Amino acid sequence: MDMKQGHTVKMDGRKMIELTGVIQVERFDSTEFLLETIMGKLKIRGTGLKMKYFDTVNKSAAIEGRITAFMYVEGGMGKSFFRRST
Amino acid sequence: MDMKQGHTVKMDGRKMIELTGVIQVERFDSTEFLLETIMGKLKIRGTGLKMKYFDTVNKSAAIEGRITAFMYVEGGMGKSFFRRST
Repeated sequence: MDMKQGHTVKMDGRKMIELTGVIQVERFDSTEFLLETIMGKLKIRGTGLKMKYFDTVNKSAAIEGRITAFMYVEGGMGKSFFRRST
Repeated sequence: MDMKQGHTVKMDGRKMIELTGVIQVERFDSTEFLLETIMGKLKIRGTGLKMKYFDTVNKSAAIEGRITAFMYVEGGMGKSFFRRST
């Protein structure tokens, strides 16, 4: 697989998530990551989260830990997103 | 890949999500799927969602459409996490 192509998310057994198309890691702690991807900002939530790798050349990243959710946050909609105003 | 093994989620470009370890599709419409997986109930949200396939033998499923989020719904956490008014 060419890691530079497109945006993909691959999760294995809720304990590991691998991503391509990641431009930047904006912030993270053990319960939440905020990533900038080529298809929008992406929040990943869980417990005991750790960054396994992040590579700006390949635009790839991997996070280990117990995954609870991931969600794209689009155009300042972060807050209302959870209330689902669509 | 043996589709019967474990629970995996693979998303490609926010337009297609493939899953293994899916026991049942509890309900779905064009904006939300609720799946029972071997690792807990999983909600997938988006727009224009369609079921591409679901196979109880392989425990595999695929959903097409614009993916916005997916989240595991665990023991009593559902409400505070979602707030969905439908």
